[in-house]
Amino acid sequence: MYKKVTPPYFGAAYYPESWDASQMDEDIAMMVKAGVNCARIGEFAWVNMEPAPGQYDFSLFTECVKKLRDAGLAYVMGTPTCTPPAWLSTTYPEILQMNHAGVRQTHGARRLCCVNNAVYLDYCDKIVEAQAKVFADGSEAAENLIGWQIDNELHYNSPDEYDCCCPDCKKAFHGWLKEQYGTIENMNNCWGTATWSQRYDTFEQVPTPVKDLWHHPTYKTDWQRFRAWSYTRFAARQAEILKKYSSAPIGTDMMPLYWLDHEEMNRALDIVQTTEYRAPGQLDDLPMWFSYYWNLKDKPFWVVETACSWAGATVPLWRNPVGYCRANTWLPMAFGSDAMMYWLWRTHHSGQELGHGAVVTTWGRPSHIFGEVQQVAAEFEKAGTFLTETKPIHNGLAMHFSMDAARTAENQLLSVDLKSYNHRITATYIAFREAQMNPEVLDPVHDLSGYKVIMSPYLTCIEHKGLRDRLKAWIEAGGTWIAGPYTDVRNKWDGLYKEAPFGVLEDWADIRCDYTIPHGEDIPVHCTDGQTVSGSVVFDALVCGPTAKSLATYQEEGFLKGYSAVTVTPMGKGKIVVVGTIVPTDTLVKLVTNLGIAPSVKADSNVAVVPRAGDTLRGWICVEIKNRPGKMQVPSDCVDLLTGVSYKKGAWVELPAYGVAVLQA
Amino acid sequence: MYKKVTPPYFGAAYYPESWDASQMDEDIAMMVKAGVNCARIGEFAWVNMEPAPGQYDFSLFTECVKKLRDAGLAYVMGTPTCTPPAWLSTTYPEILQMNHAGVRQTHGARRLCCVNNAVYLDYCDKIVEAQAKVFADGSEAAENLIGWQIDNELHYNSPDEYDCCCPDCKKAFHGWLKEQYGTIENMNNCWGTATWSQRYDTFEQVPTPVKDLWHHPTYKTDWQRFRAWSYTRFAARQAEILKKYSSAPIGTDMMPLYWLDHEEMNRALDIVQTTEYRAPGQLDDLPMWFSYYWNLKDKPFWVVETACSWAGATVPLWRNPVGYCRANTWLPMAFGSDAMMYWLWRTHHSGQELGHGAVVTTWGRPSHIFGEVQQVAAEFEKAGTFLTETKPIHNGLAMHFSMDAARTAENQLLSVDLKSYNHRITATYIAFREAQMNPEVLDPVHDLSGYKVIMSPYLTCIEHKGLRDRLKAWIEAGGTWIAGPYTDVRNKWDGLYKEAPFGVLEDWADIRCDYTIPHGEDIPVHCTDGQTVSGSVVFDALVCGPTAKSLATYQEEGFLKGYSAVTVTPMGKGKIVVVGTIVPTDTLVKLVTNLGIAPSVKADSNVAVVPRAGDTLRGWICVEIKNRPGKMQVPSDCVDLLTGVSYKKGAWVELPAYGVAVLQA
Amino acid sequence: MYKKVTPPYFGAAYYPESWDASQMDEDIAMMVKAGVNCARIGEFAWVNMEPAPGQYDFSLFTECVKKLRDAGLAYVMGTPTCTPPAWLSTTYPEILQMNHAGVRQTHGARRLCCVNNAVYLDYCDKIVEAQAKVFADGSEAAENLIGWQIDNELHYNSPDEYDCCCPDCKKAFHGWLKEQYGTIENMNNCWGTATWSQRYDTFEQVPTPVKDLWHHPTYKTDWQRFRAWSYTRFAARQAEILKKYSSAPIGTDMMPLYWLDHEEMNRALDIVQTTEYRAPGQLDDLPMWFSYYWNLKDKPFWVVETACSWAGATVPLWRNPVGYCRANTWLPMAFGSDAMMYWLWRTHHSGQELGHGAVVTTWGRPSHIFGEVQQVAAEFEKAGTFLTETKPIHNGLAMHFSMDAARTAENQLLSVDLKSYNHRITATYIAFREAQMNPEVLDPVHDLSGYKVIMSPYLTCIEHKGLRDRLKAWIEAGGTWIAGPYTDVRNKWDGLYKEAPFGVLEDWADIRCDYTIPHGEDIPVHCTDGQTVSGSVVFDALVCGPTAKSLATYQEEGFLKGYSAVTVTPMGKGKIVVVGTIVPTDTLVKLVTNLGIAPSVKADSNVAVVPRAGDTLRGWICVEIKNRPGKMQVPSDCVDLLTGVSYKKGAWVELPAYGVAVLQA
Repeated sequence: MYKKVTPPYFGAAYYPESWDASQMDEDIAMMVKAGVNCARIGEFAWVNMEPAPGQYDFSLFTECVKKLRDAGLAYVMGTPTCTPPAWLSTTYPEILQMNHAGVRQTHGARRLCCVNNAVYLDYCDKIVEAQAKVFADGSEAAENLIGWQIDNELHYNSPDEYDCCCPDCKKAFHGWLKEQYGTIENMNNCWGTATWSQRYDTFEQVPTPVKDLWHHPTYKTDWQRFRAWSYTRFAARQAEILKKYSSAPIGTDMMPLYWLDHEEMNRALDIVQTTEYRAPGQLDDLPMWFSYYWNLKDKPFWVVETACSWAGATVPLWRNPVGYCRANTWLPMAFGSDAMMYWLWRTHHSGQELGHGAVVTTWGRPSHIFGEVQQVAAEFEKAGTFLTETKPIHNGLAMHFSMDAARTAENQLLSVDLKSYNHRITATYIAFREAQMNPEVLDPVHDLSGYKVIMSPYLTCIEHKGLRDRLKAWIEAGGTWIAGPYTDVRNKWDGLYKEAPFGVLEDWADIRCDYTIPHGEDIPVHCTDGQTVSGSVVFDALVCGPTAKSLATYQEEGFLKGYSAVTVTPMGKGKIVVVGTIVPTDTLVKLVTNLGIAPSVKADSNVAVVPRAGDTLRGWICVEIKNRPGKMQVPSDCVDLLTGVSYKKGAWVELPAYGVAVLQA
Repeated sequence: MYKKVTPPYFGAAYYPESWDASQMDEDIAMMVKAGVNCARIGEFAWVNMEPAPGQYDFSLFTECVKKLRDAGLAYVMGTPTCTPPAWLSTTYPEILQMNHAGVRQTHGARRLCCVNNAVYLDYCDKIVEAQAKVFADGSEAAENLIGWQIDNELHYNSPDEYDCCCPDCKKAFHGWLKEQYGTIENMNNCWGTATWSQRYDTFEQVPTPVKDLWHHPTYKTDWQRFRAWSYTRFAARQAEILKKYSSAPIGTDMMPLYWLDHEEMNRALDIVQTTEYRAPGQLDDLPMWFSYYWNLKDKPFWVVETACSWAGATVPLWRNPVGYCRANTWLPMAFGSDAMMYWLWRTHHSGQELGHGAVVTTWGRPSHIFGEVQQVAAEFEKAGTFLTETKPIHNGLAMHFSMDAARTAENQLLSVDLKSYNHRITATYIAFREAQMNPEVLDPVHDLSGYKVIMSPYLTCIEHKGLRDRLKAWIEAGGTWIAGPYTDVRNKWDGLYKEAPFGVLEDWADIRCDYTIPHGEDIPVHCTDGQTVSGSVVFDALVCGPTAKSLATYQEEGFLKGYSAVTVTPMGKGKIVVVGTIVPTDTLVKLVTNLGIAPSVKADSNVAVVPRAGDTLRGWICVEIKNRPGKMQVPSDCVDLLTGVSYKKGAWVELPAYGVAVLQA
Repeated sequence: MYKKVTPPYFGAAYYPESWDASQMDEDIAMMVKAGVNCARIGEFAWVNMEPAPGQYDFSLFTECVKKLRDAGLAYVMGTPTCTPPAWLSTTYPEILQMNHAGVRQTHGARRLCCVNNAVYLDYCDKIVEAQAKVFADGSEAAENLIGWQIDNELHYNSPDEYDCCCPDCKKAFHGWLKEQYGTIENMNNCWGTATWSQRYDTFEQVPTPVKDLWHHPTYKTDWQRFRAWSYTRFAARQAEILKKYSSAPIGTDMMPLYWLDHEEMNRALDIVQTTEYRAPGQLDDLPMWFSYYWNLKDKPFWVVETACSWAGATVPLWRNPVGYCRANTWLPMAFGSDAMMYWLWRTHHSGQELGHGAVVTTWGRPSHIFGEVQQVAAEFEKAGTFLTETKPIHNGLAMHFSMDAARTAENQLLSVDLKSYNHRITATYIAFREAQMNPEVLDPVHDLSGYKVIMSPYLTCIEHKGLRDRLKAWIEAGGTWIAGPYTDVRNKWDGLYKEAPFGVLEDWADIRCDYTIPHGEDIPVHCTDGQTVSGSVVFDALVCGPTAKSLATYQEEGFLKGYSAVTVTPMGKGKIVVVGTIVPTDTLVKLVTNLGIAPSVKADSNVAVVPRAGDTLRGWICVEIKNRPGKMQVPSDCVDLLTGVSYKKGAWVELPAYGVAVLQA
């Protein structure tokens, strides 16, 4: 009898279509041995599901899910639209993406179709509907279905490449622009096309991009937004079809890439799905994304792909140390995932991705991390209730993470020394994570209530998604907003404000910025607490008005002599801190501490600690992420659910390299 | 009452078309406050001047120049042909450049049209003629017009990119080749197409270039010459139209790029216009170019664009130290400019070039260098008479600077260690500038009379522009010519001479070059004055004939053992020095000193000193260019026109970092 | 009277078509003075041989070979198909190669035609046949003809560029695939197209490649094999025509590039021709290739191009030290070449390759290495009998070198740290060469009999060319096979075996590989002889069965703890050594020594020593290849044929930098 699998979901991607049907039993038996409870299937198998136009055949997959069910496993079903059959891509070559130079992709790769092409969309509709019917609510196959995944990594690969530039996309772009701007006059005004005679008379005149051409930055931003919108629309279209037949939650697997519209994409979907392939030395990058994912739906997200040992499509990219698999599996769970699936179950025997590590080898033997997988499975069993009955809690601190800001910074790099928005935001998050002050990571769309301090560094524009008004209300109601550097410096269309360097900062903070000087060597900045630190990359020359107070002053003989670098100003019941240069992250942490935010626990910086609480339970999940020993002092009596060891309040939990503890109070 | 503005012209590029018309008064009031006396306008405003085909409307600009005039300011008017309106580029896509792979540019950038396309040329003719009529001699608008600028940076961006390869260019190229060579047989002979069966039967068979194809170097050189000729012809065509209506001097703004034909371009124009964007550490590169520009017309040139603070189109590229703006403004004036205009007056609020620094911020506040601009304006007032009544004078030393040599070196790099022609020539000039021996920088076309010593390093071919015969006559009449390294080693078509390693050097200098060995490690060279220095990059194995004398000999056990590296030979009343390897620049300075050229003054190497004289006045302009203190000893009693301080002969003028002195004797 | 020239052939490439006909006498007189005995002509002169369609004119070349003959020189004649005349490439632009993006090459370069285009093939047939008739057996011109060279560097330039992708190639590719696989089902199975819905329904659906697309690795490999096959077929077609008229041996000049099918190309040809342009510091790379070339035909090969001083097409790439020319000329002779020709005789005066060094300068003077050329000519005279009467002999050691393995490693890099197959194989060879154990270098096709130990590192697949069965038989008959690392890990279509990590290694060697862990830091490996060395790049976790014995064990606390890294197992009368990680090359040498292979002589590592023997003569040719003194101890009494000096057994022959000795016992 099949017993419904409940979270935490734990499994791997499985491709029965690549193997002899006879091997399925062996594979599933091995899954049972590993202790996983689900498989993720179907995402690339269009040709198996529709071997010839209109001839649908899902038998391989209905058989597979039946065998999984019989073995007690659930599954996630993928729609196969990422990889069209050859009969489709060669009969209708116009469905293939065309690059900026007019060169089309060819059969034999993936994500190669244009999501704005009518023929492709029609065939997608049909295969998805056929599939939805087979795995519909009430069908035998639906019994162990836990969710849908739409397509695969449904996005463009790089903002520099411009993605598909085919005639269908051109037409769709014109439509999208009309939708955005209404009239061409309005678009000209918003973009600022007066320079270089760029003014358009009609939307139809707007070209698709050409690589190496010096395009208008707002044009580039809008092209990228249009591309993201195209994929969002494509996913929503599939979701609509699936929902007609299935109530299983729907998502789509997106990489943590800063140029993707996770927020917009997930609006029409039910569950945030993500993939992550961080090498052992890069685990630190992830918690920021996990917090962002959680907040997108305010509920658990799914990590539907990660490496159990090493990533490496055409070539293995790293070697995993002992414990990496376990720590990498626990880390997202700590931060709010309730599904963790490896890519992939069994290494391929052919094709483009031979270099990837897996749970089982091509020849069916356990790979070297099989034992860690079994250990994690057992641990999920032990800590299952704690995981599902609690969720990460915050300490009043939040920070903004904005894809719009990332795009702006990418298209008109604000300083050659800024590197990238992503790099700076991640570094900021990590500093607070290391100080055990994990900020909540918010999209600008999110509600601000409940936070005491919100940081918005590099948030070039605060007008997107109505943030400005909500920010004002929240500050006036008592919030403390830390703005800058590079915040409120662009309007919604990436242009500068014509009246002042900021949209509202001078007004709100009672300051004047005489000028902003870009990059070059660091400049000493003297803080009111007596410390002198380095300002870098950008330098606002700030002057305080009567209600503002300087917190830091430039110390140099040049153009910035005597100007303020950081200010604080009361605003309603709250206050606003303006940061006019990039200060060291520990200076920022100190600033936030002075504003009344306390660390949640005392722990080494290499230990990621997530305080969690639910209706009845509370505690901490701790994961060592730097492959060296670390420790945490427990704030109250507690027990480690994994080991059964009890700790008295004030005791130190010692974690070995890549160690994990689930401490229930 | 408008009082005619006279040099020195001092101003900035101003784009009223990018702003509300209402803002013009504020901008011009700010210009008056800054102390500038002119603005440069119009260069990108085609769509404003011709909003629809044939509908001309110059009212924005006639109003602007009227307001400028009312405020006492002059203006330079640009023709707007760099940026076609969308109605033009979308109605006739064939006017857009096509790259080597057949991909066309699109609307939304600049300098994107093919200057060999008939439709584009026709529309250019019409807009320029319409504009010329409005700003014609005798019109109200002409009263404060001080000059015309044709188009903008009218040239290809890089010799590697091949520029426009469209069918119109192909046809024009065939015509140009016919013009150059007369018959296809002659072209085959000149190019040397016998190798690899490259011989052409007709001009029409000659292709446009394909990137990454291993093209014949002479083909590449001719393609580049053809491109340069296309732009020269394009500018001349506009100049002809403008001259029908206006007597204001005409020029076109060209960057100091070594692959542009400044000399040929300026033949049909009245005034050499240039742009320069050198970072604080690179000011040293400029004096060579300024001297070259002066000599193109033997009269003051104009710097029509420079950064007042930092350059940076999409991203700010540097931070300017205090004093940089002033020193960078004075430097070209010292070397013979009489117009200095910043790019730009007010930072943009949108578009591709947001990252550029300006005199005034987007929001209308003075930028941090506003005070330096005001200071320079006041100083130009004080030193105005000295500037206009004197010009730079020389001490008998000159050097050649040849775009043909640069192209040859680019297309068939003479040694991997040569780096580039430009790099080597600049290093040579700087060595003499630092020794206070500023050489005149001559195009090969220029008259040689009046010089005592002329250096022609890396002048691969001396046959261009009839130089060889003029050189011979000048040497025989008493001049001393320093030839080499890499001089006279190619014929006019970049081929080697078949009879000897040089065209005439062996003959003229009574030497024999047994062989030339390229690059590798340095080789010690022993000079007759007892010093041993390093030879590098290229090594001619020279043997002296009866009348020649060795000045330096290789010291090694290899193939160069005992050969001369440098020789001197009497020739008529003059002499010829052959330099067969790259010797250190100070060795070269010493050699020239021994030939009787003396430093003009005694001063630190970081102080650029320009001796100037006129009918009644003489003196020195000194600019510190390395951002550190420096000093100069005055050769006679003089007064600093900027400070009023007097100096006795032999006194030391102390300059602070980026300091300037205008010393009138 | 012409006296037939016999090996060693010694000469240079000569291009009379690039010069006035009158100069031929002077050039040939200079050849006589240099002491060379042959010239290599014709390879690029199509337009001279067929100035207009169907008008053949070989008079320049019949005259040239007559003059050569009169001067006692032989010649190699090239077919001119590498460089079509302009009348051909402009009348039929479809003969020009088209790149992956659809851009065609243009006239004016070389190797620019598509070898699968019917028009081109037809014109090639006709010119080759016309040429073959003129230089046919029995003609006057054939008297001093010593061989044919087909086309020039007849191959694609880089596996990354995909070469010609035109419609003719697409069609030919489909035909080739059909030939290879028979049915599309079989191709799908062999490639493994089940992943990503890549399955093809027909051969016609298979596309030509697109750059930057993530192609299936087997597709890439097959595309490359198809390209190589296309060139092989093209050469064979010419060879067939030539053989109808001429009995002179036919070859084609191929660079030592690891992605070319030297073995397949040379099947239809008579003599292995190669070119090499190694800088002074790279001579060490060559012996491996020379040994491979010898074994392709088991007879002397020809080096038809090498630099006498420096290579450098567009720019000189190095400076040659004294002695380099001589050592570089002797080195291939030592290893079995019997023809040595410089590229080129006289430096060009125009065209793409001006930067190349030559024996004589453009202006007809001896270049600096002329004396070395004369010296070598004299030495070939002295040692001629020894050279022709002996050949290199081996000591029982061989290693495999496989273009198939190289392609696999290129298309699915086995580890990011592997660098390249070529790099690793070369390093292995050099270690043995330095230990004076020169292995024979074998293509997998070659007979294994006669060898005692054969190494096959990085031989990813042992199924090609029937090697597996022959290996088995050879081992069982007493051979010792050293397999790995990375050996037997892929099937014939670059896929993994589904049953085991190796095809047969576990079986043959009685081992089990629990898993393979890729790259990362080195891991200590403890050898049974007590030494601890570093394992690197890849790590097989080996477990010995009852008959296997561990020779080395990993020393770490991680996943490899206690596993064997190297094992040895008896197999029939022989044994098999499995190497599961990359051990230092000296460890490998030690292993081979322990297996009973002895150095041939005692000599410094910088002295390449080739033992040679014939029916009556035996001895050693020694070449110093690192430009520093070196010595060798003679194993028996002998005389240096070049100096006449005699050595007693045990004496040390001292070689100066780049010294050469031909020691006859």
